[in-house]
Amino acid sequence: MKNLTEETQSTTEIFKGNVIALEIDTVRLPNGETATREIIRHPGAVAILAITTDKKMVFVEQYRKPVGAILFEIPAGKIDAGETNPLVTAKRELEEETDYRAEKWQRLTALYTAPGFADEVIHIYEATKLTIASNALKLDDDEFLNVHLLSLDEAKQLIGSQKIVDAKTVFAIQHFELNYNNY
Amino acid sequence: MKNLTEETQSTTEIFKGNVIALEIDTVRLPNGETATREIIRHPGAVAILAITTDKKMVFVEQYRKPVGAILFEIPAGKIDAGETNPLVTAKRELEEETDYRAEKWQRLTALYTAPGFADEVIHIYEATKLTIASNALKLDDDEFLNVHLLSLDEAKQLIGSQKIVDAKTVFAIQHFELNYNNY
Repeated sequence: MKNLTEETQSTTEIFKGNVIALEIDTVRLPNGETATREIIRHPGAVAILAITTDKKMVFVEQYRKPVGAILFEIPAGKIDAGETNPLVTAKRELEEETDYRAEKWQRLTALYTAPGFADEVIHIYEATKLTIASNALKLDDDEFLNVHLLSLDEAKQLIGSQKIVDAKTVFAIQHFELNYNNY
Repeated sequence: MKNLTEETQSTTEIFKGNVIALEIDTVRLPNGETATREIIRHPGAVAILAITTDKKMVFVEQYRKPVGAILFEIPAGKIDAGETNPLVTAKRELEEETDYRAEKWQRLTALYTAPGFADEVIHIYEATKLTIASNALKLDDDEFLNVHLLSLDEAKQLIGSQKIVDAKTVFAIQHFELNYNNY
């Protein structure tokens, strides 16, 4: 088994923004040579597979400036400064974006979204036994979205037609399908 | 249905590297206010669900500097300058990283990995009827990895134990499970 680890020799911070930071690391490769790595630092995020009592999944439809398109995604959001428990973030985001609360929460997994250039990890939860919180969304000032409920078949059709193209959302739909009889 | 689109008012390029670029866009929100968006530009990538004739999946084990860990992933790589057909990139990456060629290729989907801050799209292919290409890997100068073959059950166990934590890889394993009888 080969040694694979790259040792950091120096780190230069290029940019620190409100959401992400960019740094360039010089690393020592397993063969002793050096190389540079362009790295995005991200505070981490949560996403929620929320399922209603009649087995519909909750989606948000939202403009995503980086890709220049309106995407169908599961509810999600980044971890705010001071939030140390991703479950707290998940409960906050689900209610803010969809006005649903869930009686039952279960951690599904935590995934790296783009480990080739970013350290973002997304904590994914399942939320069931949903109830309406307040009949009024509490979105961030710069956040605009529509909420949709879809059956598994409807969601799969939107994957097939490439209307759903967000990786975490496809993960959640596949998880729903693989465990459909348990809901 | 609300209008969701954000109009670009100005774009400032902060950084342009070998792999990614960083820009800050000022946008006009649907309510007329302005906001800034920190955006990573990425050339796009491919990933390959490669399955041997005895129904084992091909994985690569590779150090990922952004997350500081050795990850189990499906073979993948970024689209090089001048590569306009992602299938060509996929065939190149599979052979370079694993020394496998495939007689049969099928496009599965294309997914955004992190649309909240990056435009990276990953084109995912299925490769079957594998043969050994040359008995010698042709890795990039700064690329070090180990190749592993795992059954579906073995791969699922590594998801359960959080040894597999890469989003595109979990997508591929779930796809393999959902279509297991077709392989």
